[in-house]
Order: sequence, then structure tokens, then C-alpha cells
Amino acid sequence: MFNKDCFLDHIAIAVENLDNAEKIYRDLGLTFNHREVVEDQQVTTSFAHIDENAHVELLEPIDGKGPIAKYLEKKGPGIHHMCYRVPDVTKKSQELRDLGYNLLYETPRQGANNCLVNFIHPKSTGGVLIEIAQKM
Amino acid sequence: MFNKDCFLDHIAIAVENLDNAEKIYRDLGLTFNHREVVEDQQVTTSFAHIDENAHVELLEPIDGKGPIAKYLEKKGPGIHHMCYRVPDVTKKSQELRDLGYNLLYETPRQGANNCLVNFIHPKSTGGVLIEIAQKM
Repeated sequence: MFNKDCFLDHIAIAVENLDNAEKIYRDLGLTFNHREVVEDQQVTTSFAHIDENAHVELLEPIDGKGPIAKYLEKKGPGIHHMCYRVPDVTKKSQELRDLGYNLLYETPRQGANNCLVNFIHPKSTGGVLIEIAQKM
Repeated sequence: MFNKDCFLDHIAIAVENLDNAEKIYRDLGLTFNHREVVEDQQVTTSFAHIDENAHVELLEPIDGKGPIAKYLEKKGPGIHHMCYRVPDVTKKSQELRDLGYNLLYETPRQGANNCLVNFIHPKSTGGVLIEIAQKM
């Protein structure tokens, strides 16, 4: 069984165009039912459930700006990060910092889906950008 | 709710060393309980549950050979693919081919965890290597 104190919240995919990307995952068999603008990250997000708790989150930059626009310019579309749900993101951030991990934010910030989030730098995690999120 | 005909089976991460990579995800809060050699892909895999059905699958090349060794050489460690469980991988492969997607195998092959698998080429999916798998 999975650990209720750490489980997948979402896999985030950087895309050029939400409509085109949704079609691909719809052809695969997924259903999209929620779009949301995340001002802080300058993206529009679209969600499809892929398991009990987890969803795929497609990320399209707003007006070609922000971190996802930069990612697309540099690397092209693809899997951008994965996010794990934890009970207390502030406490988990500190625990990971104490273990030597590089956290992106000094204090957690507002993310999509009413979550408080932080990110572990890929240099600390073997090349994978990992988000940790606490439901508010 | 998620669609029982298409849900996340795993996220696969290419790693240089299984022990080091497991430590990172253990620090995050995950538990590893199963290793398996997949001869066809020349990898040793290690699994941790991350949701009801889904797991993270770490992939370490055997003797520096095979597709994951090549991936590590070219791109370094990171998320390699994501895999969705479907009821009939042969039928789904054909449906996707008919829609214009590029499938890697003419007929599905044996994968890890007693699954029959195929892959959709990242050129067809906006930069993401997607595996589809049927439990045997």
C-alpha cells in the first residue's frame, strides 16, 4: 500500500498548447475536467485524474512568459516535474533542508488546486524537479 | 474519479545507481519493497508505491548497456517515461496507430511486473515517452 504521508499528487507536463496536448491524452484514454490559471507560475493548467489521488497537469505558459515558457524555449515540451502530497510542507521542507537538499523557496508558496507548495532542486534529486504540496 | 480503462501504472526514472536514488525517495517519504531485472530492457528496476495503483520505478542499467544506459549518457538522470495501464495493449496500440501515433513495437513485448507493453514515440506525444501496459 502507498504511504498516506507521501503520495503522488500530479505529474506536470510543459506543453505549447493545451488543446493539442489534451487531445493526445484524451486519445490515450484520459478525461480532462478542470482548468485553472496559476498567476504565480504564469501558466494555465489542465487536469486529468490518473489514479485515486493523482492527476496529470498540463502547463501552458501565459503570454509566453514565466518559468514554463523558459523551459519550453530551452528544452521543448515534456515532463516538467512530479509533485508529492505531504501533510505539512513547511515541516517537510525543513527536514529535507536539514538532510542537505536544496529547496527553491525559503517559505512555501500558493500553488494550483489550493495547495501550499515548495520544490526540491533537480541538482539535489538526481535530475528530477520534485514539488511537495500540502492541501489547504 | 479516474478511468479504470486508463490509469497511471508507473513513472520511470533513469538513475546511475539504485541505492543512491532510493535514498532520495526514501528521504521524501516513499518505501521501496521490490527489485526486478528486466532482461529485455537491460535494467534493474526498483519499485515504490505512490498511489492506489501507481508506483515510481527507478531504472539502473545493467553493465552500462541498453536503452537506459544510452539515455543517461545523452541526457543524464531524470524522468524517462510514464506508463498507463490499459485493458488490452494490442487493441490500444492499433487504435493509436490508426489515429496516427507512432508505436515503438509492431507487437507488444514482455515488460516488468508481469505486463505486456508497448511505447508511443515522444515525437507523437509532445516530447513525452508514454508506455502502455496490460497486466498478464
